[in-house]
Amino acid sequence: MRKKLILDLDTGIDDALAIAYALGSADEIDLIGITATYGNVAVPLAARNALAVLHLFGRDDVPVYPGVDHPIAPATLPKMRGTTPDERAQAYARWQNGGADGWQTDASWSPTPGSVAVHHSNGIGGAIIPDSPRAPEAPGSAVDFIITAAREYGPDLTIVPTGAMTTMATVFRNAPDLKDSGVNVTLMGGALTLPGNVSPAAEANISQDPEAADYLFKCGARTTMIGLDVTHQTALTREKAHEWASLGTQAGDFLVTMTDYYIDFYLKNQPEIRGCGLHDPLAVAAALDPSLVTTFGFNLQVDLEGPFRGRTIGDRSRLQDPDKHTQVALGVDVPEFLGRFMTRVTAAAR
Amino acid sequence: MRKKLILDLDTGIDDALAIAYALGSADEIDLIGITATYGNVAVPLAARNALAVLHLFGRDDVPVYPGVDHPIAPATLPKMRGTTPDERAQAYARWQNGGADGWQTDASWSPTPGSVAVHHSNGIGGAIIPDSPRAPEAPGSAVDFIITAAREYGPDLTIVPTGAMTTMATVFRNAPDLKDSGVNVTLMGGALTLPGNVSPAAEANISQDPEAADYLFKCGARTTMIGLDVTHQTALTREKAHEWASLGTQAGDFLVTMTDYYIDFYLKNQPEIRGCGLHDPLAVAAALDPSLVTTFGFNLQVDLEGPFRGRTIGDRSRLQDPDKHTQVALGVDVPEFLGRFMTRVTAAAR
Repeated sequence: MRKKLILDLDTGIDDALAIAYALGSADEIDLIGITATYGNVAVPLAARNALAVLHLFGRDDVPVYPGVDHPIAPATLPKMRGTTPDERAQAYARWQNGGADGWQTDASWSPTPGSVAVHHSNGIGGAIIPDSPRAPEAPGSAVDFIITAAREYGPDLTIVPTGAMTTMATVFRNAPDLKDSGVNVTLMGGALTLPGNVSPAAEANISQDPEAADYLFKCGARTTMIGLDVTHQTALTREKAHEWASLGTQAGDFLVTMTDYYIDFYLKNQPEIRGCGLHDPLAVAAALDPSLVTTFGFNLQVDLEGPFRGRTIGDRSRLQDPDKHTQVALGVDVPEFLGRFMTRVTAAAR
Repeated sequence: MRKKLILDLDTGIDDALAIAYALGSADEIDLIGITATYGNVAVPLAARNALAVLHLFGRDDVPVYPGVDHPIAPATLPKMRGTTPDERAQAYARWQNGGADGWQTDASWSPTPGSVAVHHSNGIGGAIIPDSPRAPEAPGSAVDFIITAAREYGPDLTIVPTGAMTTMATVFRNAPDLKDSGVNVTLMGGALTLPGNVSPAAEANISQDPEAADYLFKCGARTTMIGLDVTHQTALTREKAHEWASLGTQAGDFLVTMTDYYIDFYLKNQPEIRGCGLHDPLAVAAALDPSLVTTFGFNLQVDLEGPFRGRTIGDRSRLQDPDKHTQVALGVDVPEFLGRFMTRVTAAAR
């Protein structure tokens, strides 16, 4: 069977690049849907951007399903700061038992701190692209879409979550049979051997919903983690990004405008990377070809309280368990990945 | 040339087991000296215990050299809590420039918090063994002893530091030529993929002198890190330890009494390990035979401030440097190590 791919995105500049990478890999894999999570932007904007990018790249056949739009426990959100650790633990326990989470969202959700500086308030670096003529699927439909696809395709399905892990955690909570289905979950998130990027402990995607990521790592699902450990080794330089201008296409111009904004942020804040990190595209690339990364098996947890909240770290209680549930990427073949990234994204934008 | 070994110990129960492992490996390597650092106990007691253990095991030929007896910067010590981050940074900078460190020790040093519970106030689980008839070498002589040996033996010398890294950092500061000498430094300390054991960030040896460990990781020296990542995978059960009782030797009885105290602590505080961790002996074993562990190369730093003080973590500024200075052990062949541990320690105690 041809391989199937679902991207779970908070689109997002590097999420948009991940879409382009996936579309440029159509020889290898069918992108059967995009689910919208939150993080860089809220779910409605994530869905809007995914649809708009698909339209710009001429792929109005790929449906977009909105996912869970807020974290399991009232957590790091500025408007919820009064919440106590106990209240969070109770919300997490209620959720694990299948109950509703502890609060309702409305306008109380906030993007990752700093994400306007990284991605612009429109999520795609201020680049103006037309709305898609299509609407997203029904609100919250992402969870059931993923469950149905995973039951149908099993090991032939790859899911790449690159935002808050709430939708993915809900999938495995609602359908525990999927843990042993062979479905391949390659997530962008976390930092095992490096400091985080929103705190010394926490990487942005994990920080959005530490409880969801903790559940995903502990629930028995098989995951591959593409964290800052490897994504910070990759960099797209401005020189390379500007090659897309010569395509003379709307998609090429969009990529240049969008990545210019992203590279500006990186050069100002993390000049040692000498370009912008390619977080989400690397996750897609590694999901399609695991030989691009060197992984090591761990059983992980996410720290849930105090200054360590959001840290991905080994779970000491499962250290002696020889069955490791998460393959963490520690090394990456940077030249090979960068070559493929330029080839595939360029092909998609042509 | 026969391989030479120096142990840099804060003896300590598992340090004493490391001595026994080294003595039981006499077919492979010559233990040419023990240097005394601090951590579990202060330098004078570390030197006393090393000498006493050598005497008990019939090895009065191995000299013991006291090392640096206090950290580079006034740091985590209870009596020095008023010290500011700025004062610590200044002390570290002065030390790096070859100056004296920022304070004098006397009675102001304290062992790692909790170390009396782990190792007993006498360092060796309350076991009573006679003083050695020998005295330690001159105070502070460890640094020059190590430098001289490293220049003489180069790649044929292995050094295993298992306490505060102050003496080792001083060696490389005072003799920068040793960075490229091929000398093999395999240290027990740190935790890259697990929480620490004295705080969620810090492992005990690193916590004693975070600046020294930071210097050791950054100075260009080649190191192998045997951290909690692997040492918490090993465990000595009480059943195994009690096999030494049947030896009918003073050394065997000592090992039983000492490890009983250690195992009591572990069963009460970290029951998931199902025995006591074999931190320092694993470092010696891996130094003698690197094939016992699976390592991955990193460039590390130590966090120096706030709740993360003492954390060993990747240095983002050197992430893209393909030359990795520290091989961090992430996996260990537990059955093979435990087999060798029992064989060699038993041989030494016979």
